[in-house]
Amino acid sequence: MSLNEALSEQKSVLVDALERDDQGSLEELLPELRAADIAEILEDILEEDDATTVFSLLNLLSIERRANVYGYLPAELQEELAEAMSDETLLALFEEMSSDERADLFNLLDEDRREGLLRRMARQEREDLKRLASYEEGTAGAVMTSDYVAIPSGMTVSQALMRVRQTAPDAETVYQIYVLDEEGRLAGTMSLRQLMVARPGARVDDLMIKDVISVRVDDPQEETARLVARYDLLAIPVIDAEDRLVGIVTYDDAMDVAESEATEDIHKGMSIGQLEDGVRRVPLWSLYRKRVMWLVLLVFANLFSGAGIAYFEDIITAQVALVFFLPLLIGSGGNAGAQAATLMVRGMATGEVGLKDWGKLLGRELLVAGSLGVTMAVAVAPIGVLRGGEAVAMVVATSMVTIVLFGSLLGMCLPFLLNRLGWDPATASAPLVTTLIDASGVLIYFSIATAVLSGL
Amino acid sequence: MSLNEALSEQKSVLVDALERDDQGSLEELLPELRAADIAEILEDILEEDDATTVFSLLNLLSIERRANVYGYLPAELQEELAEAMSDETLLALFEEMSSDERADLFNLLDEDRREGLLRRMARQEREDLKRLASYEEGTAGAVMTSDYVAIPSGMTVSQALMRVRQTAPDAETVYQIYVLDEEGRLAGTMSLRQLMVARPGARVDDLMIKDVISVRVDDPQEETARLVARYDLLAIPVIDAEDRLVGIVTYDDAMDVAESEATEDIHKGMSIGQLEDGVRRVPLWSLYRKRVMWLVLLVFANLFSGAGIAYFEDIITAQVALVFFLPLLIGSGGNAGAQAATLMVRGMATGEVGLKDWGKLLGRELLVAGSLGVTMAVAVAPIGVLRGGEAVAMVVATSMVTIVLFGSLLGMCLPFLLNRLGWDPATASAPLVTTLIDASGVLIYFSIATAVLSGL
Repeated sequence: MSLNEALSEQKSVLVDALERDDQGSLEELLPELRAADIAEILEDILEEDDATTVFSLLNLLSIERRANVYGYLPAELQEELAEAMSDETLLALFEEMSSDERADLFNLLDEDRREGLLRRMARQEREDLKRLASYEEGTAGAVMTSDYVAIPSGMTVSQALMRVRQTAPDAETVYQIYVLDEEGRLAGTMSLRQLMVARPGARVDDLMIKDVISVRVDDPQEETARLVARYDLLAIPVIDAEDRLVGIVTYDDAMDVAESEATEDIHKGMSIGQLEDGVRRVPLWSLYRKRVMWLVLLVFANLFSGAGIAYFEDIITAQVALVFFLPLLIGSGGNAGAQAATLMVRGMATGEVGLKDWGKLLGRELLVAGSLGVTMAVAVAPIGVLRGGEAVAMVVATSMVTIVLFGSLLGMCLPFLLNRLGWDPATASAPLVTTLIDASGVLIYFSIATAVLSGL
Repeated sequence: MSLNEALSEQKSVLVDALERDDQGSLEELLPELRAADIAEILEDILEEDDATTVFSLLNLLSIERRANVYGYLPAELQEELAEAMSDETLLALFEEMSSDERADLFNLLDEDRREGLLRRMARQEREDLKRLASYEEGTAGAVMTSDYVAIPSGMTVSQALMRVRQTAPDAETVYQIYVLDEEGRLAGTMSLRQLMVARPGARVDDLMIKDVISVRVDDPQEETARLVARYDLLAIPVIDAEDRLVGIVTYDDAMDVAESEATEDIHKGMSIGQLEDGVRRVPLWSLYRKRVMWLVLLVFANLFSGAGIAYFEDIITAQVALVFFLPLLIGSGGNAGAQAATLMVRGMATGEVGLKDWGKLLGRELLVAGSLGVTMAVAVAPIGVLRGGEAVAMVVATSMVTIVLFGSLLGMCLPFLLNRLGWDPATASAPLVTTLIDASGVLIYFSIATAVLSGL
């Protein structure tokens, strides 16, 4: 929280200085701020004020700093600002941006503008930009940068160090060096740390790691980020179909991917579609669409619960007290089932749980869910006695154990089933699981009630 | 999946070689495997076979490699293996481990063993270990390492580079250098990249960044990880109450923290307590305990729904068709409310949403939830006509809009309220929100039904 407080103070001082057009304070303030913070302040300003304040602020920054700030802005805002910029300014900005951020920004522009800009670029730059901008969203290619340090096979350590020094101002990271063979294929890698402690005359080829962990351009970015985290990499090389090195994904981009994937998973767990921006800024219409689809589908799924109730109308009319326990029973089953599903879905997302673990986990869930059911039955039984007598208490307790057990097993198995069918296991969201359990819970409860009470 | 397949193949070859005691294949296989993969294979073996296979495998590794593998093993397994080791082996292992992993392992041992080991260590090592092991779990101090490169103020660039070369074999990262004043306070920082391109005779003090982003030892590790991600840091320095540098948290540890915090948040969102290990391995008893608490609490909360139903017993008996729509209405409200709560809780966890955004977000939720309610009312109204006539359809449609709107607003506001009260907003889990909405939904539905239908 202290960070947020400091930021909002900096913001108000800044906005104040802008409004008073106090150049002196502005020149004093701006160099102290970090790019990520300026970006956040810009977003905040744009929510409250109009875009002109943002522009006058941006214009006070050098083009290098502006490029830095740009990398931290959400897509929508980048687009808005780029539309108001001249081609000259945009080209100057492009030059200072890292190659992956440049490609992202480029993809936000409309067709005509893109063509116009490409025509004004040098050939090599143009090819690089077109290539990076062409990878499908969500792949390693779309998050990689082409600003890496690569050396040809056959160099000595001191030659390699010289190359690192030359490339240092432009590369995204200079701490991992990639060695290429004559065809541009990735032959090995070496860290700057290893280079620095090695004998200057030694050959890099003798020292480098040859078994390099890499991904393909079309591998999912989620898996790319997972490999970076798993092997504690500074960057992971990205290769094309011919094993040629085409880019790297650095740890900081991998962290961003991991965070947005976690957010997506959390939202999916509640049947919310993928939002193109944070919840504070995503357009209302989009937020509505991403939430409504499953909600309406589940309304119809819920009709099965209703149909179940209609089928058992006689016993309900005879024993209205049974309705008293209905929300409690189906609610408890739904909660336990959603817990089981969530544990599986997250386990699969982090790679801890695989299809092969199904049998073992089923056994575990059987034991845990059985104990949960019994505990909850014991908790609810006395109330059953109070509200409807011993027979009702028995019905309620038996139903509780059965529904919690059934619900948990359903919640546990559903993600595996979906995965097996080639779907995203996260589709087994809490709302879906609870709705399914509601319907089955109604059937279980009233069937048990009919069996026990109709004999009385 | 290809990674998992490759791993399970490597594992079966390895286990096979171990069983046949085929030293030749083992010596060929082991150097090819990465520490993280060996750790995973060990875990798998331990699940199926007994610990002796694991031991014979570990004994084939050099002590450096064993130390590396150790860093990737879950706490429970580390503890089990350490208990079976002699003090000599453990001390040798300690020497090779990074300081943060050593402290974690040390904390797993029992009191007597710890005392015994400390007595056999050199003074400086002992102090370092005792200090690192003393920080409370969940703080920056508990995840930091003391293996960093620090130089005194006043050095030239070439002196600093020399120091980096000397420290390279031991430090966790050499890519960020920290400059300390005479009292050991953090005076500035400089990246190795900047050092390499700087003039060798220049003074580090003139080039370094003085406004360093840092955390305090007792700051939460979650916030520490967030700062690393926000400012794209390679490592964040950790300072004590006197501003002295006491450690650093590197990006790879920050990534691990971020992943486990995301898992914790996802579990919390379904009212599951913090698990000390992955779902596949956590003891059954612990899994039961972490799930049962809220489930039982919610059983009692659900009694309010029951009490509501009991209160409206008359109208239910008169119009049993109303019960048909009960699961559907309270289910829909619960789903919409859980969505709203999840959006807020995740927004707060990533730092996108703060308490100050409450008003704006309330307005947005009002619009979105209103539209959702109307859409779902339209979907359900025809069925209302079919099942109970126009009057029932009107009751159901009106209830749907009211319950979805009320549920969404409740779901949206609850995380803010909890946060305001100093609680974790994630306590506003889907089960809690749906249970609260179930109870209110019963009241809303039957109140509307009584008002409309009793007049007929």
